[in-house]
Amino acid sequence: MAPSLEFYDKVSDELPITPVATKLHGLTGVAAVELDQSDKHDLVLKYFRAYIADLCQQFNGGHPGSAMGMAAIGIALYKYVMKFSPKNGDYFNRDRFVLSNGHACLWQYLFMHLVGVESMTIDQLKSYHSSSYNSICPGHPEIDNEGVEVTTGPLGQGVANAVGLAMATKNLAATYNRDGHAVVDNMTWCMIGDACLQEGVGLEAVSLAGHWKLNNLCIIYDNNNITCDGTADVANAGEDINEKMKATGWNVFDILDGHSNVSSIVHALLNARSSEKPTFINIRTVIGFGSGKAGTPATHGAALGLDDIVNIKKSFGLNPEEHYVLPSEMYDFFGDVASRGKQLEADWSTTVSSYEKKYPGLAAEFKLRVAGKMPADWTKYIPKKEDFPQEPTATRKSAGLVGNPLGENMGNFLVGTADLTPSCNVAYQKKVDFQSPELQTACGLNGDYSGRYIHYGIREHAMCAISNGLAAFNKGTFLPITSSFFMFYLYAAPAVRMGALQGLQQIHIATHDSIGTGEDGPTHQPIALAALYRAMPNLLYMRPCDSEEVAGAFEVAIKATETPSIISLSRQALPQWKHSSREGFARGAYVFVEEENFDVTLLSTGSEMVFAMQTRDLLKLEHGITARVVSFPCPRVFEQQTREYKQSVLKPRAGKPTVVIEAYAANGWERYADASISMRRFGKSLPSKTAYEYFGFQPSVMAPKIKDLVEEVKRDGIEILRGDFRDLNGTLGVGFEH
Amino acid sequence: MAPSLEFYDKVSDELPITPVATKLHGLTGVAAVELDQSDKHDLVLKYFRAYIADLCQQFNGGHPGSAMGMAAIGIALYKYVMKFSPKNGDYFNRDRFVLSNGHACLWQYLFMHLVGVESMTIDQLKSYHSSSYNSICPGHPEIDNEGVEVTTGPLGQGVANAVGLAMATKNLAATYNRDGHAVVDNMTWCMIGDACLQEGVGLEAVSLAGHWKLNNLCIIYDNNNITCDGTADVANAGEDINEKMKATGWNVFDILDGHSNVSSIVHALLNARSSEKPTFINIRTVIGFGSGKAGTPATHGAALGLDDIVNIKKSFGLNPEEHYVLPSEMYDFFGDVASRGKQLEADWSTTVSSYEKKYPGLAAEFKLRVAGKMPADWTKYIPKKEDFPQEPTATRKSAGLVGNPLGENMGNFLVGTADLTPSCNVAYQKKVDFQSPELQTACGLNGDYSGRYIHYGIREHAMCAISNGLAAFNKGTFLPITSSFFMFYLYAAPAVRMGALQGLQQIHIATHDSIGTGEDGPTHQPIALAALYRAMPNLLYMRPCDSEEVAGAFEVAIKATETPSIISLSRQALPQWKHSSREGFARGAYVFVEEENFDVTLLSTGSEMVFAMQTRDLLKLEHGITARVVSFPCPRVFEQQTREYKQSVLKPRAGKPTVVIEAYAANGWERYADASISMRRFGKSLPSKTAYEYFGFQPSVMAPKIKDLVEEVKRDGIEILRGDFRDLNGTLGVGFEH
Repeated sequence: MAPSLEFYDKVSDELPITPVATKLHGLTGVAAVELDQSDKHDLVLKYFRAYIADLCQQFNGGHPGSAMGMAAIGIALYKYVMKFSPKNGDYFNRDRFVLSNGHACLWQYLFMHLVGVESMTIDQLKSYHSSSYNSICPGHPEIDNEGVEVTTGPLGQGVANAVGLAMATKNLAATYNRDGHAVVDNMTWCMIGDACLQEGVGLEAVSLAGHWKLNNLCIIYDNNNITCDGTADVANAGEDINEKMKATGWNVFDILDGHSNVSSIVHALLNARSSEKPTFINIRTVIGFGSGKAGTPATHGAALGLDDIVNIKKSFGLNPEEHYVLPSEMYDFFGDVASRGKQLEADWSTTVSSYEKKYPGLAAEFKLRVAGKMPADWTKYIPKKEDFPQEPTATRKSAGLVGNPLGENMGNFLVGTADLTPSCNVAYQKKVDFQSPELQTACGLNGDYSGRYIHYGIREHAMCAISNGLAAFNKGTFLPITSSFFMFYLYAAPAVRMGALQGLQQIHIATHDSIGTGEDGPTHQPIALAALYRAMPNLLYMRPCDSEEVAGAFEVAIKATETPSIISLSRQALPQWKHSSREGFARGAYVFVEEENFDVTLLSTGSEMVFAMQTRDLLKLEHGITARVVSFPCPRVFEQQTREYKQSVLKPRAGKPTVVIEAYAANGWERYADASISMRRFGKSLPSKTAYEYFGFQPSVMAPKIKDLVEEVKRDGIEILRGDFRDLNGTLGVGFEH
Repeated sequence: MAPSLEFYDKVSDELPITPVATKLHGLTGVAAVELDQSDKHDLVLKYFRAYIADLCQQFNGGHPGSAMGMAAIGIALYKYVMKFSPKNGDYFNRDRFVLSNGHACLWQYLFMHLVGVESMTIDQLKSYHSSSYNSICPGHPEIDNEGVEVTTGPLGQGVANAVGLAMATKNLAATYNRDGHAVVDNMTWCMIGDACLQEGVGLEAVSLAGHWKLNNLCIIYDNNNITCDGTADVANAGEDINEKMKATGWNVFDILDGHSNVSSIVHALLNARSSEKPTFINIRTVIGFGSGKAGTPATHGAALGLDDIVNIKKSFGLNPEEHYVLPSEMYDFFGDVASRGKQLEADWSTTVSSYEKKYPGLAAEFKLRVAGKMPADWTKYIPKKEDFPQEPTATRKSAGLVGNPLGENMGNFLVGTADLTPSCNVAYQKKVDFQSPELQTACGLNGDYSGRYIHYGIREHAMCAISNGLAAFNKGTFLPITSSFFMFYLYAAPAVRMGALQGLQQIHIATHDSIGTGEDGPTHQPIALAALYRAMPNLLYMRPCDSEEVAGAFEVAIKATETPSIISLSRQALPQWKHSSREGFARGAYVFVEEENFDVTLLSTGSEMVFAMQTRDLLKLEHGITARVVSFPCPRVFEQQTREYKQSVLKPRAGKPTVVIEAYAANGWERYADASISMRRFGKSLPSKTAYEYFGFQPSVMAPKIKDLVEEVKRDGIEILRGDFRDLNGTLGVGFEH
C-alpha cells in the first residue's frame, strides 16, 4: 500500500484546516463489538476501491477518485448507521440519503449492490457509462431509480435538497407523532464534496438548517482537499470551515483518518443522531485512495488507466489479473443489512397499527399523506368567478384569494417566501410559521415544526432547492409553494430546473412579473426570463390576466402532479374580464373575443391583456379594423391540445396576420404570431403606467402599427410575413442596445 | 426624538448578535479634531433623514428606511473617509463605492448632492419615482449615471462586484505601481444590508475575498436587523455573522450605535484602510430612524405617510410645515469635500507625470489601460483558418487555440475559471495565477496579484458577478474571461444578466454545451438555457461549429465593446469545414452550402452542424432531395443585418420549407424555421454519440422526416406551415414529459 499511504501521510501533515473537535462519545444503537472488525473493513475497502477502478476503466471514463476516497464512509453508513430497507426503497420511515457530490455515484451504486438492492445487479453496475438505454447507473444519481432520493449533479443542490428532506420529517413528526408513537422519525444524511460548500446555494441552505436547528440532518463532508484545479486551497485558503459551520449554528466533528477509520466515522454519525443541532462531519479522505495518482485531481473525472489499476491491486495485495472481484466475504459482511431493514419495516408497521387504533382520525389523514394524496378535497377552496371582487385587482392579490384558503386548509401545503410576505400575499389566515419551537424572535413571529409557513430569508435559490427536497420526501406528501418576485426566480433557476427534471410538483408564486413592476427599474423587470421557463421541459409557466385566470392557473398547477408550475403575477391592478374563463385557461390559450370577419388576431397574456383589449377597441373605433383576441397564458399547455383546437384558436388559414402583445422578449411567440409588440431591450425605472408608455404599449401607439401591418397584408398577401417576423416596436438598435 | 430613540434602545438591548470586537485605533489621515463636530453631525443627520422622508412621500413610494438608518455611515464615508472627486466622477484613482443594498439609493443620491456632484441637482433628487424619462435617480443606482460604479438592486450582486473592483485595483497596482509611484491604490467600499449576507452570490464572493486577502476591500454592513418579513432572526437566528466572517478570513469590527456615532464609524473605516485582510464592519443601525415605525419592516419599501413625517420633523426639532429643507450649514459642512477631491486629482496627476518620466514604457501602457484601450494589437493573435488542425477538434479546444494566445499576450485579459481548468482549456502558456503573494498552496499553484489567471473555485455565480466588477472598474481597462460548463451559466445567470444590462464587455467561455456532453447526463445537458441567453437583451450567445467559427466568435466578442458574449462550445470533437467562414460568422448566420434549385433549407449551429451536413448528403443520396444549409451561430447578430441579407440567407419567398436542427428547445427558431428537430424533454446519460441517437439526431432518422415534410409542402403548398410549426421528433408527450 506504500505509494498511496505515503502520499496520504504527506498530505495529512499539510492539511490547511485545523481539526477543532474529535468528540467520540460512546456508541448508541450499534454494539461496540460489531465495530471491532477492522480486518473485514480492510477487505471491503480494498475490493471496493479496486472494483470502482475497474468500472471506470471499462469505458475509459467516469469519476473514480471520490468514490474510492469515500469507501470507509460508505461502510459506516450502509453497514452500521443508516436505517433503511434494501429490499424496499419506498419504506416510508427510511433514513434519507443524498449524494450531493453526485459524480461519486458509483460509490452509492456499489454499496446499494452490496447491501442487496435487487435492481442493482452486476450487469447494471457495468452499465455505468455504457450505451445502454436502460441503465439505472447514469453518470449522476437519478430520482427515478431505486434507492435514489433526489437527482444530483449540479453542485450544492443536494445540500439544499437534504435540508428540505429533513424539514419534511420535522413537519410530519410534529404534525402526526404522538407520545410513544413515532410514525416518522428518520434522519437525513447528506454526503458532500468541497464544491457544495463553495456554491452559494449550499451556503444558503446550511444557514437555514442552522436557523431551524434541524438536528435530524447530518452533512458528511468528503474533505479530500482536491478540486479540478488542484488542492482546494487554490481557491479556498481563507476559510476555516469548521469554525464557519459552528458560527452558522452547526455541531461539528472532525475526523482525520477518514480513508480507513470506519469506527470513528460511525461514532460521529451516531452522535449526529442525538445532536441538538444539525451536524457537520468533516472527514479527511484521500481522493483516488490506492491509485498512484491518489490525492491529485487526475483521479477525479477520468479512468485511472490500466497500469495504475494493476498497481492499485498489487498495493492492496489483490490479483492484478482479476477484474470485477467482489468476494463472498463482502456480501457476508453486509448480509445483515437487508434483514435489519425488514425488521425496521415490521417495527414501523407495528407502530402505525397501534397508532391507528389510538388515533384513528389522525392515522387516516397520515395514511393519505403516506399515499401521496391530498388530505382534503381541494376543489372546494377555489373561489368561483362570481366570488372575486370586480374592481381592478393585481393578480398577486388574486393569487392570495385563491391560494390562501388552500394554504390554510390543505395540510400538505408548505407555503414559503424569500422574505416577501408583504408583497407576495401568500400568508394565509392563522398561519403558523415553520420554526424551531425554541426560537424567540425579536418581532414575535415564532413558530413550531408543525407550522407550514416558511420564511426562507432572502435566499431564492435555496428556497426552490429546499422545495425540491420537500417534494421528493415522498412524492405527493407535500405540495411546496414558494414565492418571490418573478425576476428573482432567475436566482433560483438551477433549482427550478432540477424540480422540472425530477417531476417534483410544486407551485412557484412569481409576482411583479413585468415592466409594470415600475419604479424598481430594469434590475427588477424581467425581459428574457419567461423565454427560459417557456422553453424548459416539464415546467408550466402560466401568466393569468385576471382573478378568474388565476383560479385556472391554480387548478392546472394542482392537477399537474408530476410537473412544477410558475404562476406569474402582476404587481399592478388589472381589470377583471367577463371574457376570462378557467376552462379556457386550462387549454393553455383560448379565444377571448371572437369575431367572424376579422382583420387581425391579437395574442396577449397577463398584465398586457388590458392593452390588447384597449387596442382592439381603438382599432375598431379609429381604423375600422376588426381584431379578435386570444388569451394565451401557457404555450406549453396549449401544445398539448389537438391540432383542431389549436387551429380554431389561431386561425392560421384565414390569411390574416397575428400579433402578440407582451412586454417580454418575443422569442418563442414566433410559433404563433407574425409580429410582436414586445421588449427589445431592458426595462426602465418609471411608474408602471409610464414604463409601458415609454416602451410603446399605449393602444394609441400600437393601433396604427397594427393597422399598417393589416393593410400591408391586404395589399401584398399574408405570405410576405413568412420568414419576416415583424418587431413592431423597433429594432434592437446599435450596439445591441441595452 | 423620543419615540425612535426609545425604540432603538429597546432593540439595542435585544440584539441577537454579540459584538465581538470594537477595536478603535488612533486616527490616520483625518485629524481627530475634525471629528469633534457632533453638533454638526446631529444637524446633518436630522435634515438628511427628514429630506429622505420627504422624497419618498412625494410620489408615495420608495425605500426610506435604510436610507434614513444609514445616515451616519454616509457622513463618515462621504465627509471623512472616501477618496473621490465630486466634480469628476471619472477620476481614475478614486475609491470605488458600491451600494449593494441598491434600494437605499436615495441615501447615495442625497450624499452625492451634498458633496457637490453637479448632475445631482435638487430637481434630479425630486425626480426619484417620478415619470421623468431623464431621471438620474432611478429606483436603484444605475451605472450610466455619474457617481455610480455599478448598477445594483438584485441583492448580493454588489458584494461580488466590489470584490471585482478590489481585484482590479490589486492587479493594476501589482502590474504598474513602482516604488514611490502608486499610480493605483484606491480602496473599495461596499455598503450592504442583511440580504447580501443571505444570498449565495454574496457568500461566495466573501469567501473569495478572504481567500485573496483583498485588504483594499471593506464591507459596511447596515445591520438594522430588519427584513421585509420581520426582524432578521425570523430567518437568520442560527448565525453569528461576526464569527462567520472571521472564519472566512475577514477582519471584523462591530459598532453598536451606528445610527449616530460618526466618529466610531470613521475610526473603523480608517482601520480598514490599513488592514491586512478584507474588513467587515458590522454597524447596528435603526431602519427608518426617526419614524414612528422605526425599527420595523413598515419603513422599508413604502413612503412613511404624512402624519409620520410631521412627527419625524417634530421629534428632530424641525418645522413640520417645511419640506425639502437642506440648510446652508449642511452644504458648508461638506464644502471641503470637492476641493479635497480636486487636490486628490492633482496629486495623482503629479504622481503619473513623475512615473511617466521614470518609467516611460510602463506609463505608455498604463495610459492605454486608463483610456480603456487594448494594450496591444489583438488581431495578430487570432489564428488564420489554415493554421488550425484539420482533424476533428472539440470547439472547446479550438477556443483554447484562439483564446490562449490572447490570454498570454493581452495584459487586459483576466482569464478565470470556476474550477474547470482541465476541461475549459482557458489556461494559457506561462500563466501566473491571481493570488495573494503570501499564499502557499499544497499543490504549488501559487501566484501574485499581477497574475491574470483566476481560480474562482466552484462558484460560477460569484465568478460572473466579480467579472462585472472587473469590467466596471473603468470600462475597457479589463476584458474579463470566465469559463465553466454551459449548464452552470444557469447558476451565474443573474450576474450574466447584470453584465448585459450594464453593457460590461466580457467573454464567457461555456463548454460542454449540448447533449453531446454525454455521460454526465441530463443534469449537465442544457436544453432550455440557450433560449434564455438568446432572448436576453445586449448579450451575444454564439455557438460556433468549428475552429474557424470559433475565431469568428472571438472577433465578434472582442469588437462588441459594450456587450458581453457567451461562446458556446462542444465537449466532443467536431469536423472542420471548408464551408465555414469567420466573415460569415460575423453576420450571425450565413449560407454554408448554397443550392440554386433546392427543396429545403436546413439551419444548424455548433455541434449539430455535422448532423445537418450528413442529413443533407443522405437526403440527396437516398431521397433525391436537395438541401441548402445555413450556419446560424448567433440570431442576435443576424437580426442586425439588412433585410436583403437576411432574405438572401433564409430565402423565405422560395416556397420551400426550412428546418432547424439543434439539440436544444426550439423556442425562438420559429422566427426563421417552419419545423425543428430539437429537444422536447431533458437529456439522458449516454455517451455523446448514443445520446444524439437516442433523441433522433441520426441523419438516417432525420432525413425521412424532412423528406415527408418536403413532399407535404410540394403537395399542399408552403402556406400549410403557417401557424403550424412542426416538431419533427415528437410531441411533448403526456404529463409534460420530463
